[in-house]
Amino acid sequence: MALREQLIEYRDGDTRLQGFFCHDDSYPGPQPAVLISHTWCGRDEFVERKARRLAWHGYATFALDMYGEGKCGKTVEENQALMTPFMQDRKLLARRINAALAAVKSQSVVDPRRVAAMGFCFGGLCVLDLARSGADVRGVASFHGLLKPNGLPPNKIPARVLIMHGYDDPMAPPEEVLAIAKELTAAGADWQLHAYGHTVHAFTNPQATNPAGGMAYNDRADRRSWHTLIQFLEEVVR
Amino acid sequence: MALREQLIEYRDGDTRLQGFFCHDDSYPGPQPAVLISHTWCGRDEFVERKARRLAWHGYATFALDMYGEGKCGKTVEENQALMTPFMQDRKLLARRINAALAAVKSQSVVDPRRVAAMGFCFGGLCVLDLARSGADVRGVASFHGLLKPNGLPPNKIPARVLIMHGYDDPMAPPEEVLAIAKELTAAGADWQLHAYGHTVHAFTNPQATNPAGGMAYNDRADRRSWHTLIQFLEEVVR
Repeated sequence: MALREQLIEYRDGDTRLQGFFCHDDSYPGPQPAVLISHTWCGRDEFVERKARRLAWHGYATFALDMYGEGKCGKTVEENQALMTPFMQDRKLLARRINAALAAVKSQSVVDPRRVAAMGFCFGGLCVLDLARSGADVRGVASFHGLLKPNGLPPNKIPARVLIMHGYDDPMAPPEEVLAIAKELTAAGADWQLHAYGHTVHAFTNPQATNPAGGMAYNDRADRRSWHTLIQFLEEVVR
Repeated sequence: MALREQLIEYRDGDTRLQGFFCHDDSYPGPQPAVLISHTWCGRDEFVERKARRLAWHGYATFALDMYGEGKCGKTVEENQALMTPFMQDRKLLARRINAALAAVKSQSVVDPRRVAAMGFCFGGLCVLDLARSGADVRGVASFHGLLKPNGLPPNKIPARVLIMHGYDDPMAPPEEVLAIAKELTAAGADWQLHAYGHTVHAFTNPQATNPAGGMAYNDRADRRSWHTLIQFLEEVVR
């Protein structure tokens, strides 16, 4: 028994995107699905590993592509250049991730009524913006995600929102935590925010080894947040 | 097969206390134990139910008594009168809950190296103060607990701390959330704070039916926090 893995082409307007789709076809019937939104690095091995890991739980998983043609940055500068257009144009960001949602819903093995989304760092912001767009998705889970407001007119948020946050993350300081709590409450979202002490940015990434720079793996926060994710998915898409 | 239940007398100085001890003796060997600290009402049916529920998981549970002789208030005024001496004397509070910790550790069916504590509302504050006292306890979990600082010289906190918090709880406003995060970080505690949106005080109590007054049962927050507790106990005392 093995996972089925394939690259799936989809589009946002003229932009060609390439997602990594993975599922365990020994599970019968249409499966609940999980979109996985990458860090500023692009759709790399890190998110593909998460996709495989979740697929073994019986979720069809789709590591989406924000940048086009599966592009990945190789340096901090390249990552920054890839991410910046989306940070500067949050409508583009919302449209781009909604294209991924449509793509996963159209897969024949996916039950389109049972789709959730998760993301890491920049990808955490992407799934938060997916929820903010009012998209028809059951739940979104952000791991050490950016929290910055999108500056767009607010929508009601039907998705359940789970934010898992390193409390010492320099990219999401306490004032932004207070602001997102207020914003999600005003939007009527069912939300949770789990803050982990002594935890900085990128806490799920074993390659992150720069605590002084505010980016470091944290074994406990990684395990706790993964467990919480699994429980959240059971709640929202099973 | 049934749970073994008994009332256990213990003391804090001259004060006679009466805890409710419960365990499932079909589990072999010394068991991990969980102290359960009551709301301002006293050691009532609410905490005894929690004790039984956890005992079925293989934990020896001890619904402790802060007030003496198992006293319970019958009115808001009585509850207030019972709680006030402890809110005014946090050293007394710390001594009283440490007496319960000693009592449960002395039970022959308990493994004294594997003890955690949990509490509700006032009891959430009690277990937080237990941690703040530097007590040798593996972890403490607070459900809709008060967060107010105890005003005592700070200790290093060896216990892992889990705070489950209704974000709209009028008894623990956002500025107290920020303050406890700072305090627990300074104390070196391994801490987590889970905030639930649209959730007020007493969210685990089905009898709480006063949302306008900031006290109401919340089915989702109740289920999520219980699940998180079980996972936390597995982590800290298994």
